[in-house]
Formats: sequence, structure tokens, C-alpha cells
Amino acid sequence: MKKYSELSQDELIKEKEVLSNEYKQWQAKGLKLDMSRGKPSVEQLNLSMPIFDILDGKSLMRCMNGVETRNYGCLEGIVEAQHLMSEIMDCQPEQVIVCGNSSLNIMFDTVARGYMFGFGGCTPWCKLEKVKWLCPVPGYDRHFAITQHFGFEMINIPMNDDGPDMDMIEDLVSKDDSIKGIWCVPKYSNPQGIVYSDEVVRRMANLKPAAKDFRIFWDNAYAVHHLYKEKCKILNILHECEEADNPSLVFEFASTSKITFAGGGIAAIACNNANRQELKKTLTVQTIGFDKINMLRHARYFMDVESVDEHMKKHAKILRPKFEMVIKTMERDLGDAGCGTWTSPKGGYFITYEAPKGTASRIVELAKEAGVILTPAGAPFPYHMDPNDSIIRFAPSLPPLEELEQAADIFTVCARIAYLEKLILAKA
Amino acid sequence: MKKYSELSQDELIKEKEVLSNEYKQWQAKGLKLDMSRGKPSVEQLNLSMPIFDILDGKSLMRCMNGVETRNYGCLEGIVEAQHLMSEIMDCQPEQVIVCGNSSLNIMFDTVARGYMFGFGGCTPWCKLEKVKWLCPVPGYDRHFAITQHFGFEMINIPMNDDGPDMDMIEDLVSKDDSIKGIWCVPKYSNPQGIVYSDEVVRRMANLKPAAKDFRIFWDNAYAVHHLYKEKCKILNILHECEEADNPSLVFEFASTSKITFAGGGIAAIACNNANRQELKKTLTVQTIGFDKINMLRHARYFMDVESVDEHMKKHAKILRPKFEMVIKTMERDLGDAGCGTWTSPKGGYFITYEAPKGTASRIVELAKEAGVILTPAGAPFPYHMDPNDSIIRFAPSLPPLEELEQAADIFTVCARIAYLEKLILAKA
Repeated sequence: MKKYSELSQDELIKEKEVLSNEYKQWQAKGLKLDMSRGKPSVEQLNLSMPIFDILDGKSLMRCMNGVETRNYGCLEGIVEAQHLMSEIMDCQPEQVIVCGNSSLNIMFDTVARGYMFGFGGCTPWCKLEKVKWLCPVPGYDRHFAITQHFGFEMINIPMNDDGPDMDMIEDLVSKDDSIKGIWCVPKYSNPQGIVYSDEVVRRMANLKPAAKDFRIFWDNAYAVHHLYKEKCKILNILHECEEADNPSLVFEFASTSKITFAGGGIAAIACNNANRQELKKTLTVQTIGFDKINMLRHARYFMDVESVDEHMKKHAKILRPKFEMVIKTMERDLGDAGCGTWTSPKGGYFITYEAPKGTASRIVELAKEAGVILTPAGAPFPYHMDPNDSIIRFAPSLPPLEELEQAADIFTVCARIAYLEKLILAKA
Repeated sequence: MKKYSELSQDELIKEKEVLSNEYKQWQAKGLKLDMSRGKPSVEQLNLSMPIFDILDGKSLMRCMNGVETRNYGCLEGIVEAQHLMSEIMDCQPEQVIVCGNSSLNIMFDTVARGYMFGFGGCTPWCKLEKVKWLCPVPGYDRHFAITQHFGFEMINIPMNDDGPDMDMIEDLVSKDDSIKGIWCVPKYSNPQGIVYSDEVVRRMANLKPAAKDFRIFWDNAYAVHHLYKEKCKILNILHECEEADNPSLVFEFASTSKITFAGGGIAAIACNNANRQELKKTLTVQTIGFDKINMLRHARYFMDVESVDEHMKKHAKILRPKFEMVIKTMERDLGDAGCGTWTSPKGGYFITYEAPKGTASRIVELAKEAGVILTPAGAPFPYHMDPNDSIIRFAPSLPPLEELEQAADIFTVCARIAYLEKLILAKA
């Protein structure tokens, strides 16, 4: 079969007719499929149900150092949970503060802290004329929503295969002291599944920002979320920052939302001692302590990182066929046609489809009208503005495999129609 | 027996010698008793242990309207939990947003929201030269810590028997648009156990603040925390604000921290629709949702407000003898001597002892040296400054009755010694 780009106008129109008929057949089915968010499936949620047998009405509720989990106090979280999260985050337990149920909430609070009280004795950002933020793109829409909410100017940083464009980042942060931070998802990045290379992590740790209060927001959301036996590894950013004599440069975040329950797990922040002491000055005013009972439940359920690994293998077993099916469908339907490209991630929650320029919004629109809700085109970019209108984040986790098959079929029909429309218009 | 104030110098010295001997005997015991914080006792925590049998590995995890509690979403909390918290807060379920484990955290976040983004379209407080806050005193130290952390100027408002001095409040807020809020604990106030009268609540709801973004922070922490059969009631502030055509004036807060587990319960904010919509604009950026599983556990454990009432009776049964013993000890040892006054609250967590002027710090110091940790003198005041050095917050909940008896005995010895020292010095 020829590539679409090599077809004549007649051939294009004919191909579009075939696909439009197929599209109408899908529409007639009246499906309602939601691929918009990276939510775990019910099957995955069921994996963690035994965690509710960990505590019962007769459980001992003190943790190993005697802290009563049912009462106030213990601002940094119980030691067992610090230990668990440090294993997941590949850092030291004493670098970790275990918080509530949402790492996004910790990230928001951390930005808010810089905004209200400032970092390292610098002027709080709310007192500055302008604050800028670096946003590797495509990236996580909820990150960008935070920095947009604060009115920061977001600067797109292109992603390479091994992480964000470090030349550009080094250049920007060294010159402009209004740049105060960068969002990073260093492993199995949202949405491309990119794993930062050792070089990228080292260059990140060795940044020499003009702003003393510049911070890397290292969202290690998919630290243990491998799809395959091969576990991609990244360098320990806290360690690299210390080595680079930049120990306060980074805040790292993680949660068990996609290990146990989305929004029902525990979340944590890790940083060096200086950042930690500063953080605690606000935290001790903000709360008497986070939910230690859920920490205890998690820490007793996952006795060590091996049991986390075993658990994550079960997730992978459910997720892998979904990812592979979607990718196979794309290869089958879009490969020969030369219609866009897609990622084949080794972990994480997303497949990124890069459509022919200018067709992403149209694909999302077509899919919607055939009953498939995709993440809005543009969502993985600051201000929802994809300069090429080409990136679509595909979230295969939530639906059962059977529904996902339908969604993938519909998706490739929509992608081809949108591309054909574009080509036909260009030749008209 | 004569009042201390009527004793001669010789009699004072003699009395002091007797008490100093008693004090030394206490010191010799090397006790370590902590009365500093209003923590529930282990016996109270045990009351709620059956809540851990509510969910097990086989439970159905969807709530009544089908929301999956183990997955993301449902920003306002599950309907069952909204209902439960609305019963506790005496308001409408649709006014409630159920959040995480800590109402203090919600209060901090709400102040932070006014500071960063502003209320009702007004200038965010971080952009203002000066922000002032009204603080009924004595009050809750953690409230004052929040407004101090933001650098607000705190203004003391004297408490009367039926709530704060409304004349002063009305006068201040009507004149000064830099006053942006007031802390209130309207029922069984911390630390005096005062219950706001209907008149105080109505006058509060009818305030005409110069600042359009003035808000009442209504911390209904002890809404159902009665010590006796008689349940003190307060007017519904949200309703009164509506009646007064002031519907956006108030944020109400509550939690189950002293119903189930301190720091392991659920917390909520209630407000009118305009405040709610504004709040949600930030909340939706801040988090994908709070822990719905703990909400489900609580909502299923407390099927209705009657079951909360029954549960609170069990708490009262444990707490009441502690309160009564302390008060009885004060009456016995301090009454005839005319050494200070104390409250006899009908609910809540504290007894307030008002020592003879200028002796509170000394009492706390003496108690500490005899092994009894009290809340620091001054703590119930902004900047920890008690203008009369006379208020001591006594928290009888945590220790077992036997330890509490010792603590109360030591306390009254210390209170008398401090008073005697003062009287002797005055006559010297």
C-alpha cells in the first residue's frame, strides 16, 4: 500500500469515502468510551483490595518507633512510610516527608510556598513583577494548570528522546533570574514515556541558574511503573544535585496513586535538609499532621520494595496488552499510510500519537462524535496551545481491553480521515 | 480558711513553706505528664476501632451514586460524606466540600487563597501593604500561628461569656478595610468552652465590613462534642448570613478528628455557592480529589447523625470524669484561697484557668519542673503575648484519670505557690 502523501487526489477521495463509511458504522453503534485520563482500571484497583485487610478492629495501631498513628503529630509521616516512599523514590528515608493522598497537591503547595514565602530567603514570587517557568513539551496538563493558575509565564522546552533540550534550558536559566522552576517527569514521562538519560539528569543537577530560588520540580510519578521486565533506571537526582554542589536545587515528588488507589494512596516529597527545614516551617503551621493510618496500612502492606515490584508486575500484566494492542492497531492502520507516528513506551500510562501537523484537534473532534472521548488536543501544552496541532495523548489504562479495541479502531479511522481531509484540501 | 489576699506576710510565708514541701515531694516522684495538647486518649481512640472493619478486601467500593472511591475524581467529596459532615455542621450537604484529614489544613489553604488569589474579585492580600485580622482572646494557638505566618497584624478581641465583644468587632470592621477576617470557635470555644449566643451569631452575620473580602472563619471544631446530656446549640451561621443578605461572609470548618481519629478522620469546609465556585477554581488545580476511601469508611460507619450522637456519648463518658475531677481539685485547693478562677465547660476539650495577674508563666514553669507539661502561658494569644500573664489552657483529655489526678494536684500546688510568691513580693 502506498503512503497517503503519495496518492492522487482521486485516490485520496476514494480512500476517504471508504473510511467515512466505516466511521458512520462506528457512529451508529452509539458507543461511549473515555480515554481522556490516565486512570487505573477496575481490574487494577482490585489488585490492592487486600490492603483493607491489613487493619481491622483489633490491629495494633502504633508504628515501629511507638508513634500512635491514630493521634495528632508526626509531621514528617511515620518512619515505615518514609522508608517505603524512599525505596520507591530511590532516596534516603530522612529526605522524605510523607504527606496526604496527592502528590499534585504537594506540588501545588510547594509552588504556593515559593509564591507566598519564598525559597532560601529570596523574595516571595508574589512580590515580583514577573515569574517564568520552563515546561518541557509535550507534558502533563495538570502541571501546566498550576503554573498558569499562578499567572507565571510558561516557556516551552522541546523534548528529545532522552529528556528535555538541555542546551536551551542551560542557556535560559543562566541568563534570566525571573525563571524560577521547571516541571520534569523524568521516568516514563507523561505523555511520551521518555526516560531521562544519565547525561540529562547530570546536566539538570549541574544547572547554574541566575535565580538562587530556581527549583526543579521532579515529579517521579512513574518510578516503579514498568510495563516490561526491563526496568528503566534514572540517576538519583538528589544525589546528583549534592555531587554538583547544588543540593537545594530539587524537590522530588511521588505517590502510590497508581500503585494502590488513585487518590486513596499516600504521597511524598523528598529534598535536602535545607529545603526540608524551610518546608517544615510552613508545614507545621499548615497542619498538625497527615493521615498516619493510611500510611501504616500502606507500609504494612508493602513490607519492602520487592513486594512493591511484585505488585507492579501485576499492574503491568493488565496494562501491557492494552498498550500493545493500541500500538499494533496504529501500526496496522497508520503505518503504511504514513499517517503520523507514535511512542512505544516501556512504562508509565500514556501513548503519544503525533498526528500530521494541523490535524490533532480534528481527530479529537471526530473521535468525540463517534463516542470516544480523548484528552483534548493541546492539553499537553501550556495554555492548551499545541503549536503544530499534532500531539494526542492516548490513555489506554481505564477501559477493558474489548472497549479499548473499539476505541483504537475508531481512533485510527479518525486519524486517517483527518489526514485525508488535510491532503485533499491541500491539493484542491 | 481565709483568702490568701487577706493573709499577713507571716501567714503567707508559712503557707508557702507548706506548699513548697509538698511541691518537693511531687518533684521527687520524677513524673512525666503532658497536659499540653487537646489530644484524645487511647481509650477514646479505641472507641472507633470498629471503623476498620467497615472496609475489607471484599467490600463494594462504589458509593451510592456510583462514584468509584478508589479512583480519581469527585472534587467535592462523595455524597455520603457531604451528608455526614452537613449533619455535623448543621448545614446543607450541597454547601459542603469534604477534603482531607485536617480542618486546620483547609483553614490554612483558605487564608492562603485569599492571600494569593483574593476573594470575590478583590485584590489578593499579598498585593496589599497591610492585612489585619481579628482574634478573640483567649483563642486557639494554631489559628493565630496561621495569621502570624502570613504576617498579618492580629488584633485582640476580648471574649465575653456569650462570645467575642461584638461592639468592638462591629466598630473595627466597619471602619478599617485592611481587616480581612476573624477567627471564631463558636461552640465550646478553645480554650474557654464558651458557646456563642444567638445574638452574637446574628450580629456576626450582620456585620457590615468596610472590606468586601472580609470573611468569618467559623471553626466549628466541637459541634457535637458535648460533655453532658444538655447539648448546647448555636444558630446556623450560613443561614444567618443568608438572612442578613451577607451570604458570602463566612467559611465554616469541621472535622471528625475528635470523633474518630485525630489526624485520621475527614474534614470539611462549608460555604455559600459564590464562595464555593471560587474555591473550586483553585481546588481543581490543587488536587484531583481527596481520599474518598476514608470518606466512605466514615460515612458507612456513621449512617446518620444519631449514630454520631451515640458515639459522642461514649467520648463524653470518658472525658466527663476527667473534667469534673480537675474542676473539683481546683475548687478544693484554689477556691477558698481565692487563687484564680476557672471555667466549667459543657463541651469541648479544655478548661481555662485564669490565674492571678502576672503568675501564669511562673505556674507553667513550676509545673514543668515538677514533671507536668502545660500549654505554654501566652499560647492562647496572638504572638504568645498574654497582656495579663494570667490565662492557662488545661487539656485534660489525654492522660488516664490517675495521672490526671496527679497533674491536677501538682497544678494547684504550683498555682498557689506562684500566687503566694506574688503576694509576698508585694508586701515585702
